[in-house]
Amino acid sequence: MIYFDSDYMSGAHPEVLERLIATNAEQSVGYGCDGYTQRAVELIRKACDAPEARVQLLVGGTQTNATLIDGLLARHEGVLAAESGHIAVHEAGAIEATGHKVLTLPQHDGKVKAEEVERYIADFYRDETYEHMVAPGMLYISQPTEYGTVYSLQELEALSRVCHEANIPLYADGARLGYALAAEGCDFTLQDMARLCDVFYIGGTKVGALFGEAVVVSNPRLVPHLFPLVKQHGALLAKGRLLGVQFEALFTNDLYQRIGMRAVGQALRIREAFTAHGYEVVVPSPTNQQFFRLPNTVIDRLKQEASFELWGPRGDKESVVRFVTGWSTTDEDIDRLIALLQNAG
Amino acid sequence: MIYFDSDYMSGAHPEVLERLIATNAEQSVGYGCDGYTQRAVELIRKACDAPEARVQLLVGGTQTNATLIDGLLARHEGVLAAESGHIAVHEAGAIEATGHKVLTLPQHDGKVKAEEVERYIADFYRDETYEHMVAPGMLYISQPTEYGTVYSLQELEALSRVCHEANIPLYADGARLGYALAAEGCDFTLQDMARLCDVFYIGGTKVGALFGEAVVVSNPRLVPHLFPLVKQHGALLAKGRLLGVQFEALFTNDLYQRIGMRAVGQALRIREAFTAHGYEVVVPSPTNQQFFRLPNTVIDRLKQEASFELWGPRGDKESVVRFVTGWSTTDEDIDRLIALLQNAG
Amino acid sequence: MIYFDSDYMSGAHPEVLERLIATNAEQSVGYGCDGYTQRAVELIRKACDAPEARVQLLVGGTQTNATLIDGLLARHEGVLAAESGHIAVHEAGAIEATGHKVLTLPQHDGKVKAEEVERYIADFYRDETYEHMVAPGMLYISQPTEYGTVYSLQELEALSRVCHEANIPLYADGARLGYALAAEGCDFTLQDMARLCDVFYIGGTKVGALFGEAVVVSNPRLVPHLFPLVKQHGALLAKGRLLGVQFEALFTNDLYQRIGMRAVGQALRIREAFTAHGYEVVVPSPTNQQFFRLPNTVIDRLKQEASFELWGPRGDKESVVRFVTGWSTTDEDIDRLIALLQNAG
Amino acid sequence: MIYFDSDYMSGAHPEVLERLIATNAEQSVGYGCDGYTQRAVELIRKACDAPEARVQLLVGGTQTNATLIDGLLARHEGVLAAESGHIAVHEAGAIEATGHKVLTLPQHDGKVKAEEVERYIADFYRDETYEHMVAPGMLYISQPTEYGTVYSLQELEALSRVCHEANIPLYADGARLGYALAAEGCDFTLQDMARLCDVFYIGGTKVGALFGEAVVVSNPRLVPHLFPLVKQHGALLAKGRLLGVQFEALFTNDLYQRIGMRAVGQALRIREAFTAHGYEVVVPSPTNQQFFRLPNTVIDRLKQEASFELWGPRGDKESVVRFVTGWSTTDEDIDRLIALLQNAG
Repeated sequence: MIYFDSDYMSGAHPEVLERLIATNAEQSVGYGCDGYTQRAVELIRKACDAPEARVQLLVGGTQTNATLIDGLLARHEGVLAAESGHIAVHEAGAIEATGHKVLTLPQHDGKVKAEEVERYIADFYRDETYEHMVAPGMLYISQPTEYGTVYSLQELEALSRVCHEANIPLYADGARLGYALAAEGCDFTLQDMARLCDVFYIGGTKVGALFGEAVVVSNPRLVPHLFPLVKQHGALLAKGRLLGVQFEALFTNDLYQRIGMRAVGQALRIREAFTAHGYEVVVPSPTNQQFFRLPNTVIDRLKQEASFELWGPRGDKESVVRFVTGWSTTDEDIDRLIALLQNAG
Repeated sequence: MIYFDSDYMSGAHPEVLERLIATNAEQSVGYGCDGYTQRAVELIRKACDAPEARVQLLVGGTQTNATLIDGLLARHEGVLAAESGHIAVHEAGAIEATGHKVLTLPQHDGKVKAEEVERYIADFYRDETYEHMVAPGMLYISQPTEYGTVYSLQELEALSRVCHEANIPLYADGARLGYALAAEGCDFTLQDMARLCDVFYIGGTKVGALFGEAVVVSNPRLVPHLFPLVKQHGALLAKGRLLGVQFEALFTNDLYQRIGMRAVGQALRIREAFTAHGYEVVVPSPTNQQFFRLPNTVIDRLKQEASFELWGPRGDKESVVRFVTGWSTTDEDIDRLIALLQNAG
Repeated sequence: MIYFDSDYMSGAHPEVLERLIATNAEQSVGYGCDGYTQRAVELIRKACDAPEARVQLLVGGTQTNATLIDGLLARHEGVLAAESGHIAVHEAGAIEATGHKVLTLPQHDGKVKAEEVERYIADFYRDETYEHMVAPGMLYISQPTEYGTVYSLQELEALSRVCHEANIPLYADGARLGYALAAEGCDFTLQDMARLCDVFYIGGTKVGALFGEAVVVSNPRLVPHLFPLVKQHGALLAKGRLLGVQFEALFTNDLYQRIGMRAVGQALRIREAFTAHGYEVVVPSPTNQQFFRLPNTVIDRLKQEASFELWGPRGDKESVVRFVTGWSTTDEDIDRLIALLQNAG
Repeated sequence: MIYFDSDYMSGAHPEVLERLIATNAEQSVGYGCDGYTQRAVELIRKACDAPEARVQLLVGGTQTNATLIDGLLARHEGVLAAESGHIAVHEAGAIEATGHKVLTLPQHDGKVKAEEVERYIADFYRDETYEHMVAPGMLYISQPTEYGTVYSLQELEALSRVCHEANIPLYADGARLGYALAAEGCDFTLQDMARLCDVFYIGGTKVGALFGEAVVVSNPRLVPHLFPLVKQHGALLAKGRLLGVQFEALFTNDLYQRIGMRAVGQALRIREAFTAHGYEVVVPSPTNQQFFRLPNTVIDRLKQEASFELWGPRGDKESVVRFVTGWSTTDEDIDRLIALLQNAG
């Protein structure tokens, strides 16, 4: 069986695992006050060209979103997000559990439009009853989105401008950021993310780590008391150095980029193969997630040797499927999938 | 330098790490739906003699406490705990952040007394204004306590009886449960914990794992919707099998017991050595944490080659210190500490 | 100036005020434990034909919604509501502040459709990832809706059936319930509300009281600890008898019905007049709120002697306006408005 | 029967009621945007000599405490309070329900000591683990306290100094502030309260109003978004003018002071009578609440014609009782109580 279900199906990239093994017996202080974490923080600051940024390593994505969004919002504020945003749909109400509403905007292939954000805010304050409604206190975007699409540099700049004109922070969920940075046609850099977003995170769990997300707070005044907030959210890892060791490895010898580049390259090979067979590409994703509409007969035949997810409910004759690559996807896996496809049509 | 600061200073026990390495390249579904987790759950149910128990593997202690306490309490209820309980002091308000008050009871070497719990509840309902106050909705204990002491079987039975007569659940924080089970004079078993507590957790982070706490819900009706609750609290690990692999290792070949026995044996050697030098044992701890009152001069000399924590503020002439052993403490570490002590007096 | 802005612009109906005056100097115990409250509760139970119902008198609508919804939902659940529902739009995130998501459904003249509720729930549990999403834990409806429309008996029965088949409670916000019960063509009774809804409230603030909402919990097991919940939400009035006195008056000599009937009759006269002038009735409301599309020139002329609200933003040439009647609207007010309209066209 | 149970047993002071009657039929906008509220706000600013203060009228005390404390604290902070403080004991966890811990200090006749507040804060930041604990983010005091005692000007100044040196706001719960201002030996003024406290409230419910508390935010930058916060807490009264009308009356012709002076004078007569009979005054209260230790036989005889509360549980032979006066207590009530006491000994 070959696996394309998701990008968190195997353990850590060998270069990451090797460092965990090498440092396993060492003794260090807890809670991220160790030297590995300190070095990882410095590597990330450097990669972001953000020497003043506060960098905090956390364990998982929902935890990161809930902790930081709670830290960024005033009590009466909510967070703007695409209606398809992870926080709006698939975090079991983690944001609401901290007392804040998710205010949804239309999604366009998973993205929000700067002009729609701008209009939402303008309409909000034009409404005479606005003080009876939840004020938009920040904007959440996913880079790449849940549909694999990527905001261009121009789009990021427009969102950043709109947010800062409205005096609200821009936050980017980068659970798969490594694949956006390696996307076909990507025109922005990690430095751009740090420059344009007030807070974002560099996902590790889905990009080669066992677990771990590196939060970059470009403007540390926005979350002045991050440590107790992290602790309060149950998000403080006792053996914090495990995060430090992993992110140090990911930001050494360009490992984070290499993982992204390889997985995206493999995903594009998949897309090419499906396109060649005439199947519809449902979302124009340039990253490691690809979505196709396939006849159910084809799906059933592929499923005998390949594992992947239906995207939404199974249709009568056709259904949408998702193929995901990751650090552990091999070129042989892709070859085999292409061969399978040849026989399944 | 030899380290006695805490029991979470090094990585995973070699037998745990080995399994993480061996399984690293495998592909499995996420969120704890994998086979490793399933096997770990079965091993834990068996060890607890609790075939009906719901077992949930989580990442850390504060996260576990907040998620389960929130799940066990009704909106208007609070949680009873010793004033020295971890949730009352050192979790940055994680319980209050879920909307619940921590109702404190006097601590006696870190423990609460069944008769004081009983009296609290009786007094509460005798107070005519009780509906204006926070109702005691459950009891939290730590086994062992933050001071290393252990509830005896008789004490556990009394607490369980008092709680169940009052119709509130008994919850035990077992962050260091392995050391309680291995304590000098321990007269209770894991099965007793499962029988007497409604919910408790078997700590992994401090007992040989990289991270991980195994929650045992003896009566699953008490928390019918645990999965979404875990997700909502940001406590769901994407690569959930990492927890399964580790707990499977800990519950194979009695590893969990072996780690506990060895570390407690080492701690008792430390206690013997300090006692032999006439230093005061501050808390009668039979587990892996030992507390002594030492002259500051002795502390300063020991500190040159050994790392350990002051317990509370430094006194004028004497201070209280804590020595902790763990899976990575070697017998040579203990020998060396004893030799240091010989020369420091 | 004649006022049609809202139904909470003047004080209490004279029959209510008179009772407040008559009882002002009496001494009674606080927090709703007094005899007036007890008698009001009995009158309401009788009017609802619900002798077992728990009746709780609260001060305001948002407070009532937040307290009861928080009490009805489990931690991981959210509340289904029309996207135009008061809790979804105009309560400043009061529901989210208690930790719960408002799950929105399409609105049809302010109402939700039973089949759409049914489909939402079915789709939810068919989604394999449903445990990562917020579970629909109850249904909120407004009767009448924010647009003045009313659920028919058949619609209420369908909603009740759908909810109970899904094992979730049906909750009705009756801030203006008196006007629904008096609506043109109304085919349901207070007893039907109590029979079909698990919890609903009988609005006083907008129907003749100074303030006050009477919550009817048809099935008291659903909210077993209402009193401390009310206290915790800051919703317990010290001089609780003020609520008792007012609701006793409202449910004596059919006052609640009389207020509703008169105000609805006046609203229908307004509608008739606007219709006679050929203006569009924007929402088919049979209650005390009426919505018309008027030329801005007409609006401006009317505004010189009548006070009323624009509904939404002012258009280029035409705008939608709302006219509301209440206990204090006089027949002369209506006559005068009709005369104004005559001259404004 | 004569009543000394509490100060919220009867309706509104006649001068307040009269204004409610006189204005009942008027039409005004809701939510406190009316002219009565505006005038009340101005009268209160003037009485406080605080022209820049934000004044917000709310309905009840617990609601006021929860709303303002939630607004003043950062997410990771808690509120310091005497262990006997209303928020710590008798608000059913309303503060914790907003996510914040109540950090308790020893009480001395209901009061906290400035030096103990200072030491708490100093000790907190000296503790190396302080970021794992709940930071003291504000100080709550009651003026007068739950035991009827009053902070002197010097005590208030010391508390204010300690708070501002620690950069945390001082908040005073003035549910019975009118009786503190009228207390025997009172040496502070309303202007002092506004000068020394960052936020406090002037209680109406217990001092002559039907209901209502006037919050004075001396430094409005501390709670920049009060209106939506009030709405979110369900604390916004639809017919907000009812609060305006009442506070306008209370601050006209010195009514608020007159009510306080008379009730305190009556309470002191009660104290004098009990003292003359040799009964112990349990708390040195100079306000409208008086606490005595009486033989149970005396209590039982008094109870035949007077209504008052036991303070705590009934003792074997003696018990502590509380007598409270209010606006509706008459001099004849006091005469009669004194006569009763004559015969009960």
